[in-house]
Amino acid sequence: MIGIFDSGIGGLTTVRAIMQKLPGYDILYYGDTARMPYGSKSPATVQQYAMENSRFLLENGAKIIIIACNSAASIAVDAVKASFDLPVFEVVDPAVEAALATPLPHRIGVIGTRATITSGIYEKKIKALNPDATVHSLPCPLLVPLVEEGWLDTPETTRIIKKYLHPLKTRQIRSLILGCTHYPILEKPIAKKIGKGVRIINSGSCVADTVARYLKEHPETDTLLTKNHNHRFYVSDITEQFEKSAKTMLQESVSLSQIRM
Amino acid sequence: MIGIFDSGIGGLTTVRAIMQKLPGYDILYYGDTARMPYGSKSPATVQQYAMENSRFLLENGAKIIIIACNSAASIAVDAVKASFDLPVFEVVDPAVEAALATPLPHRIGVIGTRATITSGIYEKKIKALNPDATVHSLPCPLLVPLVEEGWLDTPETTRIIKKYLHPLKTRQIRSLILGCTHYPILEKPIAKKIGKGVRIINSGSCVADTVARYLKEHPETDTLLTKNHNHRFYVSDITEQFEKSAKTMLQESVSLSQIRM
Repeated sequence: MIGIFDSGIGGLTTVRAIMQKLPGYDILYYGDTARMPYGSKSPATVQQYAMENSRFLLENGAKIIIIACNSAASIAVDAVKASFDLPVFEVVDPAVEAALATPLPHRIGVIGTRATITSGIYEKKIKALNPDATVHSLPCPLLVPLVEEGWLDTPETTRIIKKYLHPLKTRQIRSLILGCTHYPILEKPIAKKIGKGVRIINSGSCVADTVARYLKEHPETDTLLTKNHNHRFYVSDITEQFEKSAKTMLQESVSLSQIRM
Repeated sequence: MIGIFDSGIGGLTTVRAIMQKLPGYDILYYGDTARMPYGSKSPATVQQYAMENSRFLLENGAKIIIIACNSAASIAVDAVKASFDLPVFEVVDPAVEAALATPLPHRIGVIGTRATITSGIYEKKIKALNPDATVHSLPCPLLVPLVEEGWLDTPETTRIIKKYLHPLKTRQIRSLILGCTHYPILEKPIAKKIGKGVRIINSGSCVADTVARYLKEHPETDTLLTKNHNHRFYVSDITEQFEKSAKTMLQESVSLSQIRM
């Protein structure tokens, strides 16, 4: 199966992208809702959680792993790659590549949780590939709770998005990376506020493209992946609210099962 | 020492109230920042965490325990009382008693996290003491992230408070329980929006009153508590943001130490 984990239910936006790009592929999802959010936690803690989540996916039949959590991707991908003998993907690199594939000049905005932005991972990776690119990064900690509250198009959400994006608008960015799995749900109001000239980079779609390309180039991995339209969703904690949010993220009904770590 | 735990740093508003009401008393604080917030988690998970936190306090010299987390108070106080042989206080009962001590008619509003409001604990306890009281409860999940973002008096925060409190205003409540340890930090804008006729009940202050009264009535417990102005603050995860928030909550500088459970 394709194993995907996130700190919570936000990673389901990546699952949705995978389901669209690789229809029929079996998916095993693990959302660590009992310890979410990772965004405000220290690197050591996030790394420990990422290792535990990866082990769960591996032990339950995952043949590739996608880290669909920007905080964990930034901090823990190297440790996961070093510890487990299977292809590991994450949501940062594909978004960086997509941003650098847009027309010049490369004035790139990045929004995410505080941990992701503080880690500087997007800026480092963009600069490593193109030292001339300009990167403006901005933490937007209120967007996740707004999505989870279901305030997707309220005036309050619009105002907060406007307030957050203002510094990026004045810097005339040309592309904007949504560096958090929850943000695709707010893609419309974000696109509206940042303006027409800015290309929005959705990291879930980008990683789905990357995985699809990898499987075409590596048939030996592709044959390991079963394709029976089997989608299993595990979480470390379950509440009515998580189930409601999961439906918002996946944009279809979903049945969550609880696993205690 | 007086042991106090919370899911994060919000419980420091209760520590502040204790320091004001019982100056000099030694305090041992534990904030479970690695697993915060509890508000969105299931009762079984919150109960497990509360037991672990209580054990930590007991093993490190606590002679009384204050559960300064509304989610844990609602869900786990009975389990903690049954498992540990020391006086256990929590933030719900004292606030309920304070609300019922206000002049008639008892039209009481309660705001808190989704877990606290869904548990119905305030309504049940108020009705048990006074079946004639009317209780209007309302989850306000965005207020905690707004406090942690440091947006204490921005127009966005004012708008969100206004939107949340609107249903309580139309019901003409007479008192409003701040059923979350973060909310005292927003007491001024909340008081302004709900209007002059409504008495604000701050649960941190109420539990400090209850503990002070208990110690006066139980000198055998009071003598167990050292009084050397020694305040120790432990958290399960530490970041710059937590340190900044801790200062906001305690309204003075604070040094946090990390303990892994």
